[in-house]
Amino acid sequence: MSGELYLTDSEKMAVARAEAEKGAAEGGIPIGAALFAADGTLLGAGRNRRVQDDDAAMHAETNAFHNAGRQRSYRDTVMVTTLSPCWYCSGLVRQFGIGRVVVGDDQSFLGGQEWLAENGVEVTVLNDPGLIAMMGEFIHTHPRLWNEDIGED
Amino acid sequence: MSGELYLTDSEKMAVARAEAEKGAAEGGIPIGAALFAADGTLLGAGRNRRVQDDDAAMHAETNAFHNAGRQRSYRDTVMVTTLSPCWYCSGLVRQFGIGRVVVGDDQSFLGGQEWLAENGVEVTVLNDPGLIAMMGEFIHTHPRLWNEDIGED
Repeated sequence: MSGELYLTDSEKMAVARAEAEKGAAEGGIPIGAALFAADGTLLGAGRNRRVQDDDAAMHAETNAFHNAGRQRSYRDTVMVTTLSPCWYCSGLVRQFGIGRVVVGDDQSFLGGQEWLAENGVEVTVLNDPGLIAMMGEFIHTHPRLWNEDIGED
Repeated sequence: MSGELYLTDSEKMAVARAEAEKGAAEGGIPIGAALFAADGTLLGAGRNRRVQDDDAAMHAETNAFHNAGRQRSYRDTVMVTTLSPCWYCSGLVRQFGIGRVVVGDDQSFLGGQEWLAENGVEVTVLNDPGLIAMMGEFIHTHPRLWNEDIGED
């Protein structure tokens, strides 16, 4: 499509990072995500909304997916997320055939990204030091909220 | 807890079925779900909202989960759904440690229920003739909408 819209993975991640930072400023869990079309068009961005909306179903990836509205095909889309997608969000990626996932941090938490790769999804891990530090600090200071978000009793 | 709240699987499924029927009456995809506590308390019920709300993220199970609000643990909960849960909804069940899933129909569509069983979730399949007929008819008459809902191009 348009070469002018081309974005590097780091530029795409900046959109997800901005969502995570908005979430942190709101007192929420600092995870952000964004869904892009093949040509670099942003289809939807979102962030974890557990605290802000008391919404257990809106992880960053599902919120970005929700905000992208109804799409006919996800084959050529890219889901960019600041944190390795949990099983819920990995299941979203697999069911809807999202072609590629870019992960900002798989050190603070490792979700289903290997399962996705085994099932044909292209997975790229950036392991951005700033994102690792942000999430690591959050988990350390808010263990109960974090465990609630990943379903750990 | 209270023995008076005890519900059979068929009684629980009636709640999910009523949601699916509401969805059908709204012109939506007729899939319903309900999340119950161990003692039979209904935590949340929901239905597919793709058509009604143009919301791609609200499958029946995720809508029921959303409507159940924030829960500290899902270990003793039961997700009852009229149709075999897709990967997205199966991922939800696995991530949040929902202990049991009751499926109304795995003939019209087979999602990730076997994967869930392999990973410690108790899966019960009712294969209710009325539910199989309802979903089969919907898929036959609305193939494009159905394919959109499961991410088939």
